[in-house]
Amino acid sequence: MHVEQHAKPIKGIRLATACAGIKQSERDDVTLIELNEGAHCAAVFTQNRFCAAPVIIARRHLQQSSPRYLLINSGNANAGMGAIGLEDAEASCVELASRTGLDKSTVLPFSTGVIGERLAVSKVTAVMDQLLAGLSADHWPAAATAIMTTDTVEKVASVQRTYAGCTVTVTGMAKGSGMIHPNMATMLAYIATDANVEDDVLAHCLKYAVDRSFNRITVDGDTSTNDACVLMASGQGELLVEGTDNAAYQVLSDAVSAVCRQLALAVVADGEGATHLVHIDVSGGQSLAECRCVADAVALSPLVKTALFAEDPNWGRILAAVGRAGIDDLDVDGVTLHLDQVLIAERGARAANYSEQAATQVMQQKEYCLRIGLGRGAEEVRISTCDLSYDYVRINAEYRS
Amino acid sequence: MHVEQHAKPIKGIRLATACAGIKQSERDDVTLIELNEGAHCAAVFTQNRFCAAPVIIARRHLQQSSPRYLLINSGNANAGMGAIGLEDAEASCVELASRTGLDKSTVLPFSTGVIGERLAVSKVTAVMDQLLAGLSADHWPAAATAIMTTDTVEKVASVQRTYAGCTVTVTGMAKGSGMIHPNMATMLAYIATDANVEDDVLAHCLKYAVDRSFNRITVDGDTSTNDACVLMASGQGELLVEGTDNAAYQVLSDAVSAVCRQLALAVVADGEGATHLVHIDVSGGQSLAECRCVADAVALSPLVKTALFAEDPNWGRILAAVGRAGIDDLDVDGVTLHLDQVLIAERGARAANYSEQAATQVMQQKEYCLRIGLGRGAEEVRISTCDLSYDYVRINAEYRS
Repeated sequence: MHVEQHAKPIKGIRLATACAGIKQSERDDVTLIELNEGAHCAAVFTQNRFCAAPVIIARRHLQQSSPRYLLINSGNANAGMGAIGLEDAEASCVELASRTGLDKSTVLPFSTGVIGERLAVSKVTAVMDQLLAGLSADHWPAAATAIMTTDTVEKVASVQRTYAGCTVTVTGMAKGSGMIHPNMATMLAYIATDANVEDDVLAHCLKYAVDRSFNRITVDGDTSTNDACVLMASGQGELLVEGTDNAAYQVLSDAVSAVCRQLALAVVADGEGATHLVHIDVSGGQSLAECRCVADAVALSPLVKTALFAEDPNWGRILAAVGRAGIDDLDVDGVTLHLDQVLIAERGARAANYSEQAATQVMQQKEYCLRIGLGRGAEEVRISTCDLSYDYVRINAEYRS
Repeated sequence: MHVEQHAKPIKGIRLATACAGIKQSERDDVTLIELNEGAHCAAVFTQNRFCAAPVIIARRHLQQSSPRYLLINSGNANAGMGAIGLEDAEASCVELASRTGLDKSTVLPFSTGVIGERLAVSKVTAVMDQLLAGLSADHWPAAATAIMTTDTVEKVASVQRTYAGCTVTVTGMAKGSGMIHPNMATMLAYIATDANVEDDVLAHCLKYAVDRSFNRITVDGDTSTNDACVLMASGQGELLVEGTDNAAYQVLSDAVSAVCRQLALAVVADGEGATHLVHIDVSGGQSLAECRCVADAVALSPLVKTALFAEDPNWGRILAAVGRAGIDDLDVDGVTLHLDQVLIAERGARAANYSEQAATQVMQQKEYCLRIGLGRGAEEVRISTCDLSYDYVRINAEYRS
């Protein structure tokens, strides 16, 4: 499916950004997304027990009303603040609601940035009129930039498909660079479609897409306190989706999944300090779970990640990570290792015709596959990750996140 | 208990080192340890499925005979070599056995260094006569140096105790700096005592000590393919230990545990690129397992480890790691966080009287405790770790391990 890396507008969904001065720079740091009346919405949130105040409030409001506004600030996570954090997140919603004549529960708050410092609600409030006046369906690129923290590029994706004469558009944006590890949604992501689709169908579609995109990337194994992923459906386009067991749903689901995958790959490619995007493809497992264990062990190994950075085909470190991944009855003689099409190791040892030069050439690419065959079953999984560079240490030793 | 950081000789145990040219430098890289006739021995090995050839051979020989020689080379791990690796490990034993008139199964081989390159057995063989001629009970310091790879300091420890008029001495050495993560023994370590003690009692004593020392440190979460820890008892001292349920055993067990703890701390303090030794003390857990999960999540978090390097009391990252450690019913309001005696966070938020200056002062020390109270039980654990620095990336991007 063709995924465009720029944002097509979604009829019914409008966005605006403003500079509230929460970040120290003069970049826009507050984003408002407006959903049309009658729009539907589904969301998934971090599973970290120390979830941030806006996550708690957003979950609560979602149960009470259909969302009409998403209010997102970057530069401050409003996390680790206890009761005062909840009050601040709630107060932002109250302020916006008072300007729109709606109940506060129609506003979902989101925050990303520094943990453990109080959110300046007055700064957010001060730009609310400007935000409401500036709403436009064309502001996806500005919004994708305004939600960034340590990200180096904005991340947007769009897909348009036609089914039975009806066109459906799906557009999304995401932010995320550090504290990225699959455990539900691992960053902030907002996806919208013009399809006409109810909440429960939307939730099904979102869970499927997230499990196969944002939950299959890792930068550093750290799950954020603020992760959230929202899927909105304005219903103002041509496609009507009823239930999940039909072709129209499949069209929508495929489009949403494609947008989520594109955004997820953009997040990991922009991982803090990353110089390579590496897909860990594990196949031949007896279960998805064991494939996942092996892929995670390799993707999270600092020794493997520094070798990826060095463009060093250090297959011994990869085999060592596979060997400690927890498969007690793994027959090492059945394991094969490829870098793209280059066979590196088999039968527990370096391949007979192994060429270090060929392996190094693969690793010099910006993006490639590290393929691990377990030789014991038919299950497989792909986890996408990045390398561990000096810049990862620099960014995280200097940045107070 | 007073642990000396230099090695007291153990009567009956002799050591020798030589430069075989396996390493590129001109440092000694082969070590021979001789056990007296009648000595006893116990050992634990890596649980990595891709264990190295010498681990497989050493396990096999241990079941066949009482060890008389430990033959250790650094610079080459003899791992990931398949059948030829096993032949090479075995051949080294055969060569040494032929010079001593003993069966090959009385020799245990050990290797550490580069994975995936063939061990030059002829180089090891070439120094065997020199090794046999140079054996001395005083050569612990030279041996501790000869087994090093990326280690920056040699690691030795000794304890001497007296019980019922009998003196017992325990001396050990270890190497390890990268690929360090608790999963049984996570490096090479050799401990000897002059106590008179049978194999099964020795095995019990070793397992207890390793579980509480080498299995409670982590540098990078990577379990090596070559880890081994050997406990030898010459029986030529004064202490007789029979069975495990008596005071004499307790004296020996305490001494062995103290030596192992000292060596384990020396390994993690010398972790690749490490600038701080940090003890993660988790208390108030419902089980040892959940304390361990929390300690591991914190100790392995790249975001926490870079903050330790930056001497930045970034408690949000610590809480985030605690929150994703897998305790589903964790009440975040019950969690407390201290740096040594400085209270950082409580009730899910920064402590009211928190002083960043005081917290930073703690983190500027070479060694300190990060104390996490879970507030839900009486179990506790200590895991010792180090920070993640630029040098970790440099060492592992440049070194082919």
